Amino acid sequence: MAPINLGVIGTGWITDDYVSHALTTGKFALGAVYSRKTETAQAFASKYPAQKPSLYTSLDALAGDAAINAVYIASPNLYHFAQAKQMLGAGKHVILEKPAAATEKQLDELFALAYSKKVVLVEAFRHVHEANFKILKRSLPKVGKLLGASLTFGQYSSRFQNVLRGETPAVFDLKMAGGALVDLGVYVIAAAVELFGEPETSVYYPIKIATGADGGGTLVLTYKEGFNVVLTASKVFNSYAPSEIYGEKGTLSIPTITDVETVTWMDASRKGSREELGGEREKLNLKEEAAEHARIIEEADWDQVKRWETHSRGVVRITEGVRRANGLLFPGES
Amino acid sequence: MAPINLGVIGTGWITDDYVSHALTTGKFALGAVYSRKTETAQAFASKYPAQKPSLYTSLDALAGDAAINAVYIASPNLYHFAQAKQMLGAGKHVILEKPAAATEKQLDELFALAYSKKVVLVEAFRHVHEANFKILKRSLPKVGKLLGASLTFGQYSSRFQNVLRGETPAVFDLKMAGGALVDLGVYVIAAAVELFGEPETSVYYPIKIATGADGGGTLVLTYKEGFNVVLTASKVFNSYAPSEIYGEKGTLSIPTITDVETVTWMDASRKGSREELGGEREKLNLKEEAAEHARIIEEADWDQVKRWETHSRGVVRITEGVRRANGLLFPGES
Repeated sequence: MAPINLGVIGTGWITDDYVSHALTTGKFALGAVYSRKTETAQAFASKYPAQKPSLYTSLDALAGDAAINAVYIASPNLYHFAQAKQMLGAGKHVILEKPAAATEKQLDELFALAYSKKVVLVEAFRHVHEANFKILKRSLPKVGKLLGASLTFGQYSSRFQNVLRGETPAVFDLKMAGGALVDLGVYVIAAAVELFGEPETSVYYPIKIATGADGGGTLVLTYKEGFNVVLTASKVFNSYAPSEIYGEKGTLSIPTITDVETVTWMDASRKGSREELGGEREKLNLKEEAAEHARIIEEADWDQVKRWETHSRGVVRITEGVRRANGLLFPGES
Repeated sequence: MAPINLGVIGTGWITDDYVSHALTTGKFALGAVYSRKTETAQAFASKYPAQKPSLYTSLDALAGDAAINAVYIASPNLYHFAQAKQMLGAGKHVILEKPAAATEKQLDELFALAYSKKVVLVEAFRHVHEANFKILKRSLPKVGKLLGASLTFGQYSSRFQNVLRGETPAVFDLKMAGGALVDLGVYVIAAAVELFGEPETSVYYPIKIATGADGGGTLVLTYKEGFNVVLTASKVFNSYAPSEIYGEKGTLSIPTITDVETVTWMDASRKGSREELGGEREKLNLKEEAAEHARIIEEADWDQVKRWETHSRGVVRITEGVRRANGLLFPGES
């Protein structure tokens, strides 16, 4: 089978990471690079000399390139929707970096378009495809009846220093659909939705910073079964606390839920007991995700497209709901 | 100066712990032991043969013992108020185990009585008197502007197994003024109030267990300065996560906020930096608390009595408020 000929929009480190790992799967070729400036596209392409991608500074031209059958989009959040819409409309599969959309309405429109064009749309969440994340999910029954969970991702961004100097970098700019919730928060939200399903209620306690955006915050998800999940995400401080899942029978501990190194099981009835459940990790940490994207596209696995659509909907319902409740509004919202 | 002649109400492990450490300060003598049964009082007294305490099975008799000038109360929560009232009324200093009271109104009454009788009333919180806790408090300016904190105390109680068998042990019985919030929760609440002051709002997300009480839960305190403090307390699962305090300049990490072993400072601007701030610990972990109680009583330090009264009020306002908001009602409440 011919490789999926991939175009990319956005030339940052995440695109580099995705492309390099996608190529190791043997399922992709890098067919096109879009950037607003030729030099930037050229600089990115030069990292993959064997691929000889076409270079574009026009989205229309990329959309019109019949040789490209899938597009990976990792542009600034604000452009995700319009760019995905254009590429899906042009009949290309779209692998869309998180956050796929700012609102569920946008997701509705994108998925309706994807299905009508018979192309795949998938939001690119790395961690939920990792082998150890899947082990964690399969291990949930060990804890017995769930009592709660605390999932944490606090990673200090050097851009916060710009904020402290009075600047407004895009990642902390609501006008650019920024803020910690949709940037790092979606990782812990995506993990929670994948592990526990959609919550009954979501309450966000943002830490508002000088730009007006949330630099971080705590999200409490309550579930109808009676347990609560507490999510902490931050770009303004580091957290070194592990994530934990609590049940009547014990505690599962995960040092980093966004990149699962180990999964440790501690049985409450056996004091001091520790059992390691995690296995050997894939060293190329985006390879598992890219391989799954390729498989879904090649096999036209609509069941999985719909399964991940449900997941993306679960995530965006939370982010959209708590953003509106906290006045964290993006352009066009009121 | 003659030692403070201490009577004790309650003969459990915590009383044993307090008395043994109090005696090491050289400031206390064990003058009386009250228990409902003579054998229990006798068994407790036999651990301190050199002290030759009087044994009582009547609170009136203990209250009437003029040789006793202070009483340590560590009975079941439900009896704290009436017993403290009786002992204060009899002109004795009272060291009252946490939770001192179920409501602020009860505290009002107890403190009014203490002041009118010119005796000391103090709620017994161990951790806030520890040297390393004080170092932590003094170190707060290191983090710069506060962004948040997460304080955690999750300790599985073997009594939870009784609950799972359909029983209602006192510690999980609302009729006995039980539940995780007033049992372990007060430790993290007391730490938060001592470190950050009283919050603007408090929201509790309890994990309700079969007895109707809270087996644990998450408490979110919001502060008018814009930061939030997330407290996790549980008697139905163990948490191995450290407590953390976040600021614009970095993170303070404390393995166990209720028993501060170490205080580690991690500067956000210097990746990988770790500085240990904590010092040598007092091995007898209630000695610092007991020594402070003795000092306050001996010096009649009313400023400190009022300072800790303010602290106890801050704690009970939170517990009472969130209990009522969540229908976690004790006898006589509606």
